[in-house]
Amino acid sequence: MYPKSFASDNHAGVHPAVLEAITAANHGDAPAYGDDRWTAAFEEKAREVFGAGAHGFAVINGAGANMVGLALMLGRYDAIICADSAHIATHEAGAAERLLGVKLMTVPTEDGKLRPEDIEARLGGIGNPHESQPTVVSISQATEFGTCYSPTEITALADAAHQAGLRLHVDGARLANAAAHLGCDLKAITTDAGVDVFSFGGTKNGALAAEAVVVLDPSLVREVPFLRRQSLQLASKMRFISAQLSALLTDDLWARNADHANQMAARLADGLAGISGISLAQPVQSNAVFATLPQTIAEELRRRYLFHYWDEAAGTVRWMTAFDTTPEHVDDFLDDIRKLATAAVN
Amino acid sequence: MYPKSFASDNHAGVHPAVLEAITAANHGDAPAYGDDRWTAAFEEKAREVFGAGAHGFAVINGAGANMVGLALMLGRYDAIICADSAHIATHEAGAAERLLGVKLMTVPTEDGKLRPEDIEARLGGIGNPHESQPTVVSISQATEFGTCYSPTEITALADAAHQAGLRLHVDGARLANAAAHLGCDLKAITTDAGVDVFSFGGTKNGALAAEAVVVLDPSLVREVPFLRRQSLQLASKMRFISAQLSALLTDDLWARNADHANQMAARLADGLAGISGISLAQPVQSNAVFATLPQTIAEELRRRYLFHYWDEAAGTVRWMTAFDTTPEHVDDFLDDIRKLATAAVN
Amino acid sequence: MYPKSFASDNHAGVHPAVLEAITAANHGDAPAYGDDRWTAAFEEKAREVFGAGAHGFAVINGAGANMVGLALMLGRYDAIICADSAHIATHEAGAAERLLGVKLMTVPTEDGKLRPEDIEARLGGIGNPHESQPTVVSISQATEFGTCYSPTEITALADAAHQAGLRLHVDGARLANAAAHLGCDLKAITTDAGVDVFSFGGTKNGALAAEAVVVLDPSLVREVPFLRRQSLQLASKMRFISAQLSALLTDDLWARNADHANQMAARLADGLAGISGISLAQPVQSNAVFATLPQTIAEELRRRYLFHYWDEAAGTVRWMTAFDTTPEHVDDFLDDIRKLATAAVN
Amino acid sequence: MYPKSFASDNHAGVHPAVLEAITAANHGDAPAYGDDRWTAAFEEKAREVFGAGAHGFAVINGAGANMVGLALMLGRYDAIICADSAHIATHEAGAAERLLGVKLMTVPTEDGKLRPEDIEARLGGIGNPHESQPTVVSISQATEFGTCYSPTEITALADAAHQAGLRLHVDGARLANAAAHLGCDLKAITTDAGVDVFSFGGTKNGALAAEAVVVLDPSLVREVPFLRRQSLQLASKMRFISAQLSALLTDDLWARNADHANQMAARLADGLAGISGISLAQPVQSNAVFATLPQTIAEELRRRYLFHYWDEAAGTVRWMTAFDTTPEHVDDFLDDIRKLATAAVN
Repeated sequence: MYPKSFASDNHAGVHPAVLEAITAANHGDAPAYGDDRWTAAFEEKAREVFGAGAHGFAVINGAGANMVGLALMLGRYDAIICADSAHIATHEAGAAERLLGVKLMTVPTEDGKLRPEDIEARLGGIGNPHESQPTVVSISQATEFGTCYSPTEITALADAAHQAGLRLHVDGARLANAAAHLGCDLKAITTDAGVDVFSFGGTKNGALAAEAVVVLDPSLVREVPFLRRQSLQLASKMRFISAQLSALLTDDLWARNADHANQMAARLADGLAGISGISLAQPVQSNAVFATLPQTIAEELRRRYLFHYWDEAAGTVRWMTAFDTTPEHVDDFLDDIRKLATAAVN
Repeated sequence: MYPKSFASDNHAGVHPAVLEAITAANHGDAPAYGDDRWTAAFEEKAREVFGAGAHGFAVINGAGANMVGLALMLGRYDAIICADSAHIATHEAGAAERLLGVKLMTVPTEDGKLRPEDIEARLGGIGNPHESQPTVVSISQATEFGTCYSPTEITALADAAHQAGLRLHVDGARLANAAAHLGCDLKAITTDAGVDVFSFGGTKNGALAAEAVVVLDPSLVREVPFLRRQSLQLASKMRFISAQLSALLTDDLWARNADHANQMAARLADGLAGISGISLAQPVQSNAVFATLPQTIAEELRRRYLFHYWDEAAGTVRWMTAFDTTPEHVDDFLDDIRKLATAAVN
Repeated sequence: MYPKSFASDNHAGVHPAVLEAITAANHGDAPAYGDDRWTAAFEEKAREVFGAGAHGFAVINGAGANMVGLALMLGRYDAIICADSAHIATHEAGAAERLLGVKLMTVPTEDGKLRPEDIEARLGGIGNPHESQPTVVSISQATEFGTCYSPTEITALADAAHQAGLRLHVDGARLANAAAHLGCDLKAITTDAGVDVFSFGGTKNGALAAEAVVVLDPSLVREVPFLRRQSLQLASKMRFISAQLSALLTDDLWARNADHANQMAARLADGLAGISGISLAQPVQSNAVFATLPQTIAEELRRRYLFHYWDEAAGTVRWMTAFDTTPEHVDDFLDDIRKLATAAVN
Repeated sequence: MYPKSFASDNHAGVHPAVLEAITAANHGDAPAYGDDRWTAAFEEKAREVFGAGAHGFAVINGAGANMVGLALMLGRYDAIICADSAHIATHEAGAAERLLGVKLMTVPTEDGKLRPEDIEARLGGIGNPHESQPTVVSISQATEFGTCYSPTEITALADAAHQAGLRLHVDGARLANAAAHLGCDLKAITTDAGVDVFSFGGTKNGALAAEAVVVLDPSLVREVPFLRRQSLQLASKMRFISAQLSALLTDDLWARNADHANQMAARLADGLAGISGISLAQPVQSNAVFATLPQTIAEELRRRYLFHYWDEAAGTVRWMTAFDTTPEHVDDFLDDIRKLATAAVN
């Protein structure tokens, strides 16, 4: 067995309640491609959680959720305004450029968060046929730095986007973690904040492989089934994807999982506070801890645990927690860090 | 619960051994994106089953497996020669055209099968910069009509393709059913027959959602990880996909599942033989029965059972069986058909 | 110098009046990319010729005119219904598939012409997310076989398309030849017949390199400048493209050029009538003559003249005339054919 | 007639010798699509000028030359490293993203020039399937800021690219101006410097519409005809494009035109030196003058002359000269600037 990983919430397994839901769905036949009662149940859950006007579409993975959601809002010569750390810009193998054919207008940021003025500064080429036309603003919630947008901040971005004729997309691979940190429900940071289309990440929250594209602008709903199919994101035995999402949206499992992961990150951050030579590189607002530490310690630690450098030259690492990280996992990890730090001083 | 469906092998659930393998894999952490021991085990199984030079890559669905496998062999101005009934031509929402950007040179057929002369007849534009360049021949095994290519037939297609500088791809969404029908192993109709790249379908064979792209031409292996990621076919919690494929490839579960489904189709076809007014539209060589019957019977039957018209005007329907279709399912279905046919005559 | 070619109207040079217009435009500076008075003049001419609601956009070549015009009407998972002989299907190097990402639903025809029932027969998959969605019907006028649609036939196609929610596109690379044959103006077979977008070919009609995309559906106009630029069809020194088109549209030069070319084709066809062993393969309705003749004659003739086989196996050749083909050219060519035919008999 | 423009070298007309070459080529028939003697002559000129191993392909416009040239070197998940001011990144309407499907890894620069360390800094993701793979370095010569790379600088970039397994592309829309400034021939900054593929811009140098893609890596030559055709860059009456390029490459017309334009820019820059309140924003190394001046002067000047702001907030404008800019044009322009500057002071 692998040791507890701090590399990614994708290293975690499947939450027992999700696996149970899969098993329960394995009962007799069901129409393929979403014409089944588990999918209907998920769609109903999506309306409960995200509002009566929300249309939830189950897809298979996070990059898929982003590509389907974004494709709804983009034409042939369009551009997406996003942070230069956005997952769509850095870690989806250029899918935005190849599958959507659009330009990413990337914004350098300290904390992974866009501001309304970042949008306004990139509107100069609108109407100029020589330039890609910004049409969508895409933000990540939580960001790739583990930071969160408040509902007010999202509303301000939605307003800035809409005033300029653009739409707002949220990559919600860790939407649950953001809501848990902000102490609000999922609707407050999506539907209520003026978002047009967003993804809700199930996999990092405890699913096997399940994400949702949620469409709030009704004019965009009609296209989803076609784009989902063409984008290779339609599962034939869909009931097993839908059942996972429903499990997470039932009895606030999503919130419990996310809150737990966040608490484990906070516990890790708290424990680091007293260790000399190690400092936080970002505020801890979800299940990610970005820390800067001496390379010798980082290297030694990587011999024992799985985790990634964020910026090797700067000595910054990223530590992720998950729904199944335990206080003992964190404390053992902290012990090891402490010992290494002490040894390094001596 | 839904009644037993004859509409699609995708309507079946997950085979218990596959679900067990998923559950067994849910144990502690594992590196994401395939760097885990379940994936290593699947890759080893793929070599065992398909030959030491076979490289298996787990993906999520059948259209994804086709797009990744084909992308390996296609440039910007290329064409695929395939039957006009090919799944890539008819039911993947134009993914070949949009995601690959290539032309499908479709060949009309009676039985879904290409012949070497169909390839030869489409090579005239090679070298002409005004025409799409045929680069890949893609066949389905079993075909969309439920028919199968013999190993000899595949070898002949591979030879014709290779002699012209083209490669041979097999859409193996039902490769298991074909091998079971032919009474051979999977290697005999892929590796040994000169195929360059093929997909091996797990989902219709009893998986939840798992397919494999198998690459036999070593020069094509390097590109797979990039194309799989970009094509939205890389599962983050990959171990759960790999575990499914391994389960199917262990103790010939694939063969047992496929053979059972085929036998159920044969039982259905045998039972139809004695019913007047109903005839087979295609030879039954896998788990599909194509039958022609009076519309009144078809309509009445569709009120009770799920299945699709293949050609409504011609009165042709497609009935599929699956690993979990029972003799009772078939016999009950036949009883209903018989009663309707008798009533129709009177 | 090359001998008079019967291979293509693209082998002809530039009509003197067009070259004069280019020379006249070479006077001082002019804003680039179409913000100049020659372009304004062309746009005005387009309104005069095609109707007050017609928006003409100058582009550089015929495939470009097709791609820009079609892109206006096509989304990501769409299909074009067209004859299997359509230039976009056979001789634009797969640009429709790669640049537009769409499927071509090709219709086999005897004469290159679609009928309303061909459209109706291809609408079955509308609304099915597994299938490419037919959105545009594209016809060639004149067709690749040199045949023409009457205004009534085009109206019927437009009606059939519109009733099904599709739009009608015309590849008008030889629109002038069709109008000249039909004895009508250009508006009668475009604007008045219910066409939504068409191209007007200048190059084969006597220009150096100039085509127009003409948009009749006002909702499509806004996108043209962006798509033209991105599709590499925007000339920086646009005045020289616009001046060519204006020259053709002035004093009916387009009609005189086309009519002359058509007459030369008719003269050729008439001359063939008396030659034994040679027959017309298509009615001669523009500047193309499709003839079937013994291979020995064809081969001998190809030693002296440039022209193409259309179907080598069938012994069918395509002979094209142009604005600068003279009666002497035709008569000399006929003489040679006659001598070869006579020699062949003896 | 428009006043002399300082907005763009695209506002100039056609050089008389180029127009003469077009007229001379308008003589009888010629095979289409490049199988003619004018094209053969251009290809021979290209070998003379760029070296025996250089393959020149005539295309229609600058963005087209870039797209064809870059497509040769790029796969499906690749990236281009370029300056963030690169024309392909800013003013080709997202063609790189849509037509090529690739990511642009843009580098902020002061002067539009890349350095070897900019390449090295962007190689970290090579081999990581989650990231676009840098495959091509693309530079502009002269740059969009009018600055030039020396032969030594290009060689250093080529070495850095090649060592990392990348290729070097040059957008040579103003290659002639760069060579004229550097006092070298065109070969010294292309073939001899290790460039793999470049474009040679004819249009800004005095052509009507003619550019060349020049391929120096022999392994890339085979694909050009297909990509040129599919990318809508193949002129049917090719002789008239080829004749333009040959005219520019004959008797160093390209050099005389470029040198004259450069001298006019230098004259303008020299004249600005004595005017208070106006400063150069970039060294003048080609036919572009970037100047910073008070907005009131700029605005007044724009009422009389055509030119563009480069950075309106910073008060920076771009003034371009052309082969047909005269000393009187420059002196009159300077007079007007001087008067406005004097008035502004008083």
